[in-house]
Amino acid sequence: MASSSYSNAPCAACKCLRRKCMPDCVFAPYFPPEEPQKFVNVHKIFGASNVSKLLNEVLPHQREDAVNSLAYEAEARLKDPVYGCVGAISVLQRQVMRLQRELDATNADLIRYACNEMPPQFGARSDTNEQNSGFYFPSQWNNNNDGSHEGGESSSM
Amino acid sequence: MASSSYSNAPCAACKCLRRKCMPDCVFAPYFPPEEPQKFVNVHKIFGASNVSKLLNEVLPHQREDAVNSLAYEAEARLKDPVYGCVGAISVLQRQVMRLQRELDATNADLIRYACNEMPPQFGARSDTNEQNSGFYFPSQWNNNNDGSHEGGESSSM
Repeated sequence: MASSSYSNAPCAACKCLRRKCMPDCVFAPYFPPEEPQKFVNVHKIFGASNVSKLLNEVLPHQREDAVNSLAYEAEARLKDPVYGCVGAISVLQRQVMRLQRELDATNADLIRYACNEMPPQFGARSDTNEQNSGFYFPSQWNNNNDGSHEGGESSSM
Repeated sequence: MASSSYSNAPCAACKCLRRKCMPDCVFAPYFPPEEPQKFVNVHKIFGASNVSKLLNEVLPHQREDAVNSLAYEAEARLKDPVYGCVGAISVLQRQVMRLQRELDATNADLIRYACNEMPPQFGARSDTNEQNSGFYFPSQWNNNNDGSHEGGESSSM
C-alpha cells in the first residue's frame, strides 16, 4: 500500500521542489517525506513534470507500481549512466540462455543414461553456479551477436 | 558506429525541437534524421535536457551505448507505462530462478542414475520450454516474495 504523507510534513517531492504540499498532491501518496532520495532520483532522471504526467496516465491502483519501477530505473541509471537497468536485462538474458543450454545438455545426458548409452559420472553438472554471481556490464552490448539484447528503436521486448 | 547527420538535414533531435542543427550538436551523431521516433521517445520519457546532460556526463565512446539504452528504456516505458523495462527484468529473474531449479533437479536425477538408484525414464525434463515464451507483467511485482525484484530506493541491482 502506498504510504500516506498527508500529515504536517510536505511529501518528499514538494519538499524537493520547494512548494506547498496540497491535500490533492499527486506525488504525496508515493513519495513520503521519510524517503527523500526516491524523489530526488526520479526527478533527476525523468524530471518531475514527466513523472507527474505518467502518474496521471495510469490508473490509480497502478500508480504505486509505476512509481516504484521509475525509482528502480532511476537508481540503476544513476549507478550506471551508460546502461542503466538495460545492463541488468542484458546480464539476465545471458543467464537465461546459458541455463537453457545447460539444462538441454543435462537432459540429453539423462536420456543417454536412460538408454544405458553412457557410464555413470558423479558430480553432475555444476558449472552454472557462477551465473548467479553479480551483474556485469558488457562494453559492447549493442554489437553482440547472441541476441541477448537489442538497442535503439528497433528493439523489441 | 554512431550515424553521422552532419549533412543538409537537421538531426532528428533538432528537427523535433525546431532548432538549427549546429556542427557541434550533441544529439546529431546519435539521432540521425532517418530515425525520428528514437528521439521522440527519449524526449517524451526523459526530456531532451536530461538526455543532453547525461550525454555530457559519459565519455564520448560510451555515448552511443548510453543513447541506445535510453531509447530502449523509453520504448519499453511507452509500451508499458506501469512497469517499463523493469517488467522485463522481473520476468527474466523468474526465468533464471525457474531454470536454475529445473537444472538442480535434473542434476539430482543424473546423480541418482549414476548411483543406480532409479530406473530409466524417457523424455527427460521439458517443462521449462514455456519459459522462453513472451514476457508477462506481474500485477503485484512489488509484493512478491521470491526475490525476483525489489522496488523503491532500497532496491539493489
